[in-house]
Amino acid sequence: MSGTNHSIKIEHSLQPRMILVRPQMGENIGAAARAMWNFGLEHMVLVAPRDGWPNPAAQAMASGAARVLDQVIVRENLEDSVADLDHVFATTARERGLTKEVVSPKEAMRRAKVMIARGEKPGFLFGPERAGLENEDVVKAQTLISVPVNPAYGSLNLAQCVLLLSYEWMLQGENLARAEDVQMKWADAVPATQKEREVLQEKLEARLEAVGFFWPEDKAQSMRLSLRNMFARMPLSNVDIRSFHGIFRALSRDRELDRED
Amino acid sequence: MSGTNHSIKIEHSLQPRMILVRPQMGENIGAAARAMWNFGLEHMVLVAPRDGWPNPAAQAMASGAARVLDQVIVRENLEDSVADLDHVFATTARERGLTKEVVSPKEAMRRAKVMIARGEKPGFLFGPERAGLENEDVVKAQTLISVPVNPAYGSLNLAQCVLLLSYEWMLQGENLARAEDVQMKWADAVPATQKEREVLQEKLEARLEAVGFFWPEDKAQSMRLSLRNMFARMPLSNVDIRSFHGIFRALSRDRELDRED
Repeated sequence: MSGTNHSIKIEHSLQPRMILVRPQMGENIGAAARAMWNFGLEHMVLVAPRDGWPNPAAQAMASGAARVLDQVIVRENLEDSVADLDHVFATTARERGLTKEVVSPKEAMRRAKVMIARGEKPGFLFGPERAGLENEDVVKAQTLISVPVNPAYGSLNLAQCVLLLSYEWMLQGENLARAEDVQMKWADAVPATQKEREVLQEKLEARLEAVGFFWPEDKAQSMRLSLRNMFARMPLSNVDIRSFHGIFRALSRDRELDRED
Repeated sequence: MSGTNHSIKIEHSLQPRMILVRPQMGENIGAAARAMWNFGLEHMVLVAPRDGWPNPAAQAMASGAARVLDQVIVRENLEDSVADLDHVFATTARERGLTKEVVSPKEAMRRAKVMIARGEKPGFLFGPERAGLENEDVVKAQTLISVPVNPAYGSLNLAQCVLLLSYEWMLQGENLARAEDVQMKWADAVPATQKEREVLQEKLEARLEAVGFFWPEDKAQSMRLSLRNMFARMPLSNVDIRSFHGIFRALSRDRELDRED
């Protein structure tokens, strides 16, 4: 994973990555940049922005927060944007019908702070205007974030959602010592990267495909999504990833697939 | 003090009064209304809005939050807007050189909650775009609110400032149940029982045993322990348990074990 700006990597490692997934309006990208920079965040990633990049409307709206856009990293797809992350949070307004942990913006940023203090990389997904994140995006996240809104009127826009999360990040900064409150003891392991998770998932799906697991055809897609969601929410270390590879390989009847391991 | 709408007074007495002082752009009034209603606030007062009232631009921007504008109370001057209040908070970005208590948005809304519970009336002043509140306005407040922002770039706009305060109001309501900070959405599932976990584990170990996974002999015990530890820390639902059974069965080469399923 190489960013467009190499000189800023050190700074970025001290901040959560804010990932705008398929944003539509340049104005909203600019407004999100301002929202972030108001609270000292400047690590923005754009996944497949509708109107390409650079975007003059975004630049115009970002006035004063141009440095966020100057450093922006643009990716073709979400996989590439999260591959090196240790933990992915997804902001979502709708009920998903997915079994997944849901936390408040505050709790999410509290955890992000702890992760960064441990040298890990958390990232936050924000969906496109109107539609929000697709389920295919959401299953890539370990944790969902739900902003508590008026049940009769939840209509936070993209930049407002980024603003609230960035604000909670700032509040955590005022609270540095708290980072010690929660720790995951990883022993000799380190958290699995999203890339390692992706490879495990693909490998497992290939094995299951080979034995006709995804059947009937009309259920195949939702079966895949359920599986992805289940693994995405597991707290996996790199050692766990190896263990699962080992388990699946040992059980598997298909010797062909093993050769690719 | 008479409002333009008498029927809503009871509701308003349960909310802080959000007072926009000399707002300029109708769009920003509309955006502030949306920000408020996202978090259940609908008691807005406008002091001497530049473009008069009603304002079509405000109405257009407020879509979905029209009820806030329908109830809005317009005053000629700030004195009339705060005369019946028990406590006035003023949001301010600049240092004022005034000796006055300064609190965070959270602390301000915590106090507002307490006041309202006691039957008192708190109000919040928001200054006009660009210039913000004049010192003549600020001195009418008992307490200042300072939003913690990036020292290098504090440029929250009017609606964003209203949004953050309204959000903190909502969180005060949520404080009744801090458990809301973290939730596991189990969708149609329920958490797996220890018994279900145990059966899954035993079944998996039997399958792995059958294919010689636990090898070499002197490592077998610690391999089993690692596996158990890994599954033990996973947040598994009853549906997940079935999914894992399904995966292991599908992959497994040993037809004997399947018959026992």
